[in-house]
Amino acid sequence: MGQDTPPSRTSSSSSFEGIARSSGAVKAKARNLGVDYVISFRFTTADQKRAEAQLERLVHSLDRVGLRVEAREGRNGSVLVFVRIKSQMKFMAEVYRSRVKDWLHGIRPAAPDKETQKSLDLEPVTDAERLRLVYLMITLPPGEGGAGITPKQGEWDLVESIFALHDREFEKEWLKRWSTSWTISKDDLTTLRDKFGEKVGFYFAFMQSYFAFLIYAGIFGAGSYFLLPAYSPLFALANGLWSIIFVEWWRRQEIDLAVRWGVRGCARIQNRRAAFKADKEVEDPVTGQRVPVFSAWKRLGRQSLQLPFAILTCGLLASLFAGVFAIEIFLSEVYNGPGKSLLVFLPTVLLSVFVPTISAILTTIARRLNDFENYENADSYEYAMTQKIFVLNVITSYVPLFLTAFVYVPFAAYIVPHLDVFHIITMPVMTDEKHEAPLTPGPFQINPDRLRKQVIYFTVTAQVVSLALEFIVPTVKRKIFKKAKQIQSSRKDMENKGASRDKEEEREFLESVRDQAELDVYDVNADLREMTTQFGYLALFSPIWPLTAVSFIVNNWIELRSDAAKICIEMQRPIPLRADSIGPWLDNLSFLSWLGSITSAALIYLFNDESSSPSGTPKSLTLWGVLAAILLSEHLYFVARMVVRLALSKIESEGLVRERRERFLVRRRYLEESMGLEASLERERKVSLVQGEELDLDEVVQDEVERSFWLEPRGAAAVGKEIIGRAAQKKKQ
Amino acid sequence: MGQDTPPSRTSSSSSFEGIARSSGAVKAKARNLGVDYVISFRFTTADQKRAEAQLERLVHSLDRVGLRVEAREGRNGSVLVFVRIKSQMKFMAEVYRSRVKDWLHGIRPAAPDKETQKSLDLEPVTDAERLRLVYLMITLPPGEGGAGITPKQGEWDLVESIFALHDREFEKEWLKRWSTSWTISKDDLTTLRDKFGEKVGFYFAFMQSYFAFLIYAGIFGAGSYFLLPAYSPLFALANGLWSIIFVEWWRRQEIDLAVRWGVRGCARIQNRRAAFKADKEVEDPVTGQRVPVFSAWKRLGRQSLQLPFAILTCGLLASLFAGVFAIEIFLSEVYNGPGKSLLVFLPTVLLSVFVPTISAILTTIARRLNDFENYENADSYEYAMTQKIFVLNVITSYVPLFLTAFVYVPFAAYIVPHLDVFHIITMPVMTDEKHEAPLTPGPFQINPDRLRKQVIYFTVTAQVVSLALEFIVPTVKRKIFKKAKQIQSSRKDMENKGASRDKEEEREFLESVRDQAELDVYDVNADLREMTTQFGYLALFSPIWPLTAVSFIVNNWIELRSDAAKICIEMQRPIPLRADSIGPWLDNLSFLSWLGSITSAALIYLFNDESSSPSGTPKSLTLWGVLAAILLSEHLYFVARMVVRLALSKIESEGLVRERRERFLVRRRYLEESMGLEASLERERKVSLVQGEELDLDEVVQDEVERSFWLEPRGAAAVGKEIIGRAAQKKKQ
Repeated sequence: MGQDTPPSRTSSSSSFEGIARSSGAVKAKARNLGVDYVISFRFTTADQKRAEAQLERLVHSLDRVGLRVEAREGRNGSVLVFVRIKSQMKFMAEVYRSRVKDWLHGIRPAAPDKETQKSLDLEPVTDAERLRLVYLMITLPPGEGGAGITPKQGEWDLVESIFALHDREFEKEWLKRWSTSWTISKDDLTTLRDKFGEKVGFYFAFMQSYFAFLIYAGIFGAGSYFLLPAYSPLFALANGLWSIIFVEWWRRQEIDLAVRWGVRGCARIQNRRAAFKADKEVEDPVTGQRVPVFSAWKRLGRQSLQLPFAILTCGLLASLFAGVFAIEIFLSEVYNGPGKSLLVFLPTVLLSVFVPTISAILTTIARRLNDFENYENADSYEYAMTQKIFVLNVITSYVPLFLTAFVYVPFAAYIVPHLDVFHIITMPVMTDEKHEAPLTPGPFQINPDRLRKQVIYFTVTAQVVSLALEFIVPTVKRKIFKKAKQIQSSRKDMENKGASRDKEEEREFLESVRDQAELDVYDVNADLREMTTQFGYLALFSPIWPLTAVSFIVNNWIELRSDAAKICIEMQRPIPLRADSIGPWLDNLSFLSWLGSITSAALIYLFNDESSSPSGTPKSLTLWGVLAAILLSEHLYFVARMVVRLALSKIESEGLVRERRERFLVRRRYLEESMGLEASLERERKVSLVQGEELDLDEVVQDEVERSFWLEPRGAAAVGKEIIGRAAQKKKQ
Repeated sequence: MGQDTPPSRTSSSSSFEGIARSSGAVKAKARNLGVDYVISFRFTTADQKRAEAQLERLVHSLDRVGLRVEAREGRNGSVLVFVRIKSQMKFMAEVYRSRVKDWLHGIRPAAPDKETQKSLDLEPVTDAERLRLVYLMITLPPGEGGAGITPKQGEWDLVESIFALHDREFEKEWLKRWSTSWTISKDDLTTLRDKFGEKVGFYFAFMQSYFAFLIYAGIFGAGSYFLLPAYSPLFALANGLWSIIFVEWWRRQEIDLAVRWGVRGCARIQNRRAAFKADKEVEDPVTGQRVPVFSAWKRLGRQSLQLPFAILTCGLLASLFAGVFAIEIFLSEVYNGPGKSLLVFLPTVLLSVFVPTISAILTTIARRLNDFENYENADSYEYAMTQKIFVLNVITSYVPLFLTAFVYVPFAAYIVPHLDVFHIITMPVMTDEKHEAPLTPGPFQINPDRLRKQVIYFTVTAQVVSLALEFIVPTVKRKIFKKAKQIQSSRKDMENKGASRDKEEEREFLESVRDQAELDVYDVNADLREMTTQFGYLALFSPIWPLTAVSFIVNNWIELRSDAAKICIEMQRPIPLRADSIGPWLDNLSFLSWLGSITSAALIYLFNDESSSPSGTPKSLTLWGVLAAILLSEHLYFVARMVVRLALSKIESEGLVRERRERFLVRRRYLEESMGLEASLERERKVSLVQGEELDLDEVVQDEVERSFWLEPRGAAAVGKEIIGRAAQKKKQ
């Protein structure tokens, strides 16, 4: 176990890093009794014989790949199977082998040191690396050296989950450190990555970069809010440029981090999903091995189902929003009948009921579609799923604001009178005395503040609510469930004294594991989605309310820390997967930044001289004006992006330079080491010099004319001088 | 010299390849008396002493780097310095060293074989490789192992040029083969590249691909011309899609070819330009050597001068065109005075005089600017210069058509009456009887055919004229000059019997070399520019006349062959430089394809229902309509490009797969070879299995609780079964 701790890192001065890197790891492992993973095996759904057989097979499979296994009782009809590495030495060979594989695929620029032990001393195994490799040992198919355990699938239907155990001491230190510091350093992020893996590391790195960039946006925003007129084109330009710089900067930062963490291109090593169904086997042109594949054209055919799905999604959600919106406008601005004070809540109720329901249904369809598309590995599966969710998310997040900005405000004067259709429906309910007024509504007044209020709602209220929901609701839920289960369990305990069968010294540990078994699985994509959506509000709508960024600064300072707390307290410890980026979210950010160039232009054009038309109806607006504004803004966006990319490419990325240097050194070393090439070249050169040129030419030239041409006895300089001399003489004559 | 010819290539069945690869090379070298390069040293501008000193220095410098030198008399006061490799063996070491350097920089996926001789047998040296390396020996700075000869610069001001000698037998075979075959195969291109280097090879590969794609465009075009109405949106869509597919396809093809030719990323090895002036020295972060650099910010400052230059260019040329255009319209459609039959030629005369003059001046300014920008290496210098020339070229090529399509046709009815300003000027000339008519012009009629005629002029007439100019004019010029010089020389010969001093057996060879010394230097960028401009007509204006592509098919079949003839007959043999692409022209093609999406949309919108308004004035056209058309078309373009890129990325590129395979194999070999790593891992694993797990755990675990947890005597399966059994029993009760 000593190999886990590096031989005294001089740079690690902070106690936080110290905890993470040395003593902490040892103590934590001691506290978790050396357990790497816990497998929850729930036998209640099967009969005794099948359950016993599957459990025996599970234990045997794990043992076969070199894992030590123990079992203890879980809650409510489950067995907790504890897993750890059997032989430290064998595991170190596994680590070394994985590093060599990385190098073979070009993920590491340099091969690990040739002596296994030396290599491990130079690059100690981090918690994340150990857990990742043990996870692979548990889940890889038997053919690729794993036990092939796939929870809830096929022959492992009783395996409920596989999870790692929290390192409470590290986490306490982590939360304390982050909640008391303003910024998060690169070292902090690396420590985090050493514990939770690159995927989680990238999320927090992104959060921190985004937070740092938000400060600039907040300064522009506040400045614009107090100094510039509303809907200032200047602010929109600054905001657009900011979004471009942020996205492009992160694009480079991501690469830099991936190189620094040694995971650049790690997507090249992919393990097949258990659910993948191949339709034929072909020879891999690179490695020469036979691999199962699924025809890309067949997949394209299946993917084409996304189009009707997208149309369905858009149609369903957009018409829901439009309908509710119409009702809302009607109720708040036209309707004057009885029960208005109650009816105004109708839209909110409708949305609260229908949006989550429809979203849930659509998400289920999306997942089915994604399964059907039969992706070969987890990354491509996740990518495709993420993009489907993103579409859903864009619609639910931004359509309400689009409706207000681009339908309600410009066209309300034409549309609202037609909302009388509701009026006719509601007429019978109305009393006679109020009959006249609503039928002939007075000059309609657009509510110009509606848009701003809506943006504030989405960027402040909704963020606060979501933050609260994300943290408070699960806590409460967990407490209530635990209570309920305790009551339930205690009734059973009366009969069989459940947990009391634990050995005294193990009880506390086992109870903690049983608690962790009931926690949710952390999904980093949900957090990334949340941040992307937030970035979208900023890119798309902040000209409406320039303080948006300021609100986000406050929100995200808390969000960053509450996400850390969420991982530690609300969730099972995330399995440390590798990643070399935030995945498709970068493209989504880029997409939103582009969309922002369009919406900003349209917003500025529509609302810029709002002040001059106090009625709220934008006047003298033309279709060509808005189109020209969009065209101009979009092209400005493209040009700005090109310039920013060019400028950023001029700045040498530290990580990339290091990588290039390492690759260069590896090659040179190879060259020098392998057989003294330079020396042999030198030798040959000397030989040729000794032999002299005449001899060489003699050997080569058989042609008589050629020989006499080259073997002119006087030499070139003399011949040349003679020619020059002759010409000079002639001139004199 | 035998090493130049590969040991019997089984695949070379054609006599063309045969000539190129084996006997041809030997015979050709024999015919050129083994000369690799000729340096023309013109001493007439200096006094005798300086000329003699510089010549002696030249001979000495060349000798020092291992080149054999001879001198003979040239024409009109010049010395021809002949250069060849001194020692074949030393040169082979040079070749090997260059290949290793390529590998060090990641240009070759695999290192050359460790035995020099074996490596050279496996990959014989091509003519192009030999000439490239000898050229580097002549031109590289002394510090980098060359003689540092820089024609016309600094201490080598009397060195007029360095050129290689034509291989007439190969070239005869080449021209014969290409002029009698319809297509050019990949092997033909490779043979060409083996002779003339990758830069020329890429031009012909591009030409051939473009030609093959043109056939499809020609089919759409002809189909559209005969079956669809004029300005058919369908044709415009097909044409736009075609341009996207072509550009994206070539983007991949370029990479594939670069890998096949082993030059991918060759831009990474750059030699500093002699004219580069560094402002400081820094340590290269990759190689650790100290290198002179020029501050990127300073260069950016200098580059910013391009902006006023671009504005000047645009302003000058656009106003020239607009002025001449106005005169032309006035003369042809308004003016009715005397001398009309002669005056109609005025615009042509004006353009013929001013456009070349202004272009030449602007090109000179562009070159000065480019020099001032102080680029470090030839590639970046060329890139920057190419882009400046491209801007000039776009303006001179497309502005006339833009003016007709987007100014004359939509606005002529408003503008033409104002052309009376000319009328007032010309009034005094007019006779009294014709006075009335022009002052009150009748209802003005736009000439709807003008645009089409103009496009036909640019895409047929101008192409034919340029083809003729490119080939016939130089031939005639050369013949006349030669005649003139012969007369001049023969007069001198009377006095000194110039060429008659040649030895009898050398005379024919020397006369041929003297002829070649007078030829122009081939510039591949000029040919690429011509093709890019042509592609631009197709992408931008072919909806006006769908037969454009058909005309280009005919033109390019000849162009491809006449370019080959031009290289062989009109030009000095090109120095075989390396390149891994057609350079910035790809970006320029992409730019034109994008611009095409805008112009096509505008053209279709403006002219689509031309037929319904016989007066030629487009009616009921709105600004928002044209903006919407552009917006739609441009976004269609972006989406289509994305889809095409995605689709092409699904198709495995042969070259890339091969490269990946080679890299993979190299690494695996390294791994296996260097120290039997796998074996050592295997050994360790066996040791650990023999030792047994209990021992290992015993060693590691000090904690008492942990030990008792993991060393449960019954084993996990038994414990688990007991839990399941207990639960089952309870259920039964």
